[in-house]
Amino acid sequence: MKRLCRTGATLVVGAGIGASVSSLLSVRGGEEDERPGLLSRVPVVPTVQASEATVNAGGSAMVMKYGFPSLANIKTRESYVSSYDPRTRTASWVIERLNVASLSGPSDRKYCDFKEDDSVHMFHRATNADYRGSGFDRGHLAAAANHKWSQKAMEDTFYLSNIAPQDPHLNQKTWNNLEKLCRSLTKRYLNVYVCTGPLYLPRQEADGKLYVRYQVLGRNHVAVPTHFFKVLILEQADGRGVELRSYVLPNEPIDEKVPLERFLVPIETIERASGLLFVPNIMKRTTGLQAITDR
Amino acid sequence: MKRLCRTGATLVVGAGIGASVSSLLSVRGGEEDERPGLLSRVPVVPTVQASEATVNAGGSAMVMKYGFPSLANIKTRESYVSSYDPRTRTASWVIERLNVASLSGPSDRKYCDFKEDDSVHMFHRATNADYRGSGFDRGHLAAAANHKWSQKAMEDTFYLSNIAPQDPHLNQKTWNNLEKLCRSLTKRYLNVYVCTGPLYLPRQEADGKLYVRYQVLGRNHVAVPTHFFKVLILEQADGRGVELRSYVLPNEPIDEKVPLERFLVPIETIERASGLLFVPNIMKRTTGLQAITDR
Repeated sequence: MKRLCRTGATLVVGAGIGASVSSLLSVRGGEEDERPGLLSRVPVVPTVQASEATVNAGGSAMVMKYGFPSLANIKTRESYVSSYDPRTRTASWVIERLNVASLSGPSDRKYCDFKEDDSVHMFHRATNADYRGSGFDRGHLAAAANHKWSQKAMEDTFYLSNIAPQDPHLNQKTWNNLEKLCRSLTKRYLNVYVCTGPLYLPRQEADGKLYVRYQVLGRNHVAVPTHFFKVLILEQADGRGVELRSYVLPNEPIDEKVPLERFLVPIETIERASGLLFVPNIMKRTTGLQAITDR
Repeated sequence: MKRLCRTGATLVVGAGIGASVSSLLSVRGGEEDERPGLLSRVPVVPTVQASEATVNAGGSAMVMKYGFPSLANIKTRESYVSSYDPRTRTASWVIERLNVASLSGPSDRKYCDFKEDDSVHMFHRATNADYRGSGFDRGHLAAAANHKWSQKAMEDTFYLSNIAPQDPHLNQKTWNNLEKLCRSLTKRYLNVYVCTGPLYLPRQEADGKLYVRYQVLGRNHVAVPTHFFKVLILEQADGRGVELRSYVLPNEPIDEKVPLERFLVPIETIERASGLLFVPNIMKRTTGLQAITDR
């Protein structure tokens, strides 16, 4: 059953993932209506037991409940766990856990400053100077507003290893809306695990070949992702299981009128393009899992 | 002393490494004469004791003597150790150890076939079909001819996880010459540790900004590196120490008349551009090391 459904996803997305996603997700081409019903194809893991019945505030210890999508350069912070990519000078992924408790508290963003992560070797570290005058925002991967429960947790989101160059309009509009959606889901789910990261997707150029192309910023050549992903693992309160939602957004201005559902993609799209794996890890850590099925 | 010399390297190379290397190493621009005396700036680790006095044939157990440049997705094979990058579908680096014993033996390349590495998840694995008709050779990172000591060792170099798309002219001419140079150095050195990998270097485009741009091949989007590096750790037979030589070659046709010395770069160039670290690992594993000095 599982195999069948995964194969189904393959048929939908094919192997030319990057380019397909790239063109699918461009909001410039007026292609918003090309993927009707994609929301209905979001895979669901239906029979997982939510073993943790209580709701605690954030903290990275519980972030690994469903495993890590890769094991390179893991950093554990107060509010998240991340995997750092020393070549691009950004994280490959950042996982955090949100719930009603982690979203409330006295923490204040005005006491936070973006700061170099000196746990990263200076050859591979982004600095504030790299971003200055670049035209890109310092976009949070784990969002600051997700961690009001602790000033330290909020401050930790300001390490530049949790930041990637992001189009300012995207950062302040549609991406911000997606972050708000993640927080609002804590009203419906026991815990919301959010994994965020950059993508570098190829697109077809005039010669008919596929190329990955991305800008790099500053003296340290901080990579500007072509896209960002968010994978949401939604833990249902009544033990009915775990639901997955996967989004890919292009790193460019997006009209806020476009519904966020339009950016839902099959998880396999992200797994292929990022070099990460989500589903096998989740399945290893659950019992009674029999299928990932369309809803 | 060490710090001084490393800082010296920084001054030479600066932080705009990728672009600098890119332009420095282009053999199309007729810039071959811009770097006189670079060979004289190759850093040398002078006081390391060569603790292994005997010369054994290859085998990956001893490959880690000077540490690994990163720790992600390590694969140990008969003839080499590698770190796999599931996003680019190639290795980040491959280390092998060459000496007079590993270069001789009855192994024959005609019994070897390029093969998928099924230790890599199918979403992140290169296939022979990805290369077919692409115009690129399947270029070995650890070279087949380095491992005549064992048929299995030679066969292991044919895993596609030890392969990257390489310009055919480069592969068959100058890159082949560099591989021959590595083998010939076993006459002068006790052991020759060779670390090889891809680079994705940015270059300035018409808008004055720096971009990384590389082609991807086939259904699985196998990345075509813009450049390749080889780092040689040369172990002197008389215990006088260890010598480092670092090469970067563009993934394009190179006139064989250009001497290989022209492609020598400071190790820091590769460390910055690749996200890997070589010098700190070597220093951790040696005693009596006091300085890395110019020769």
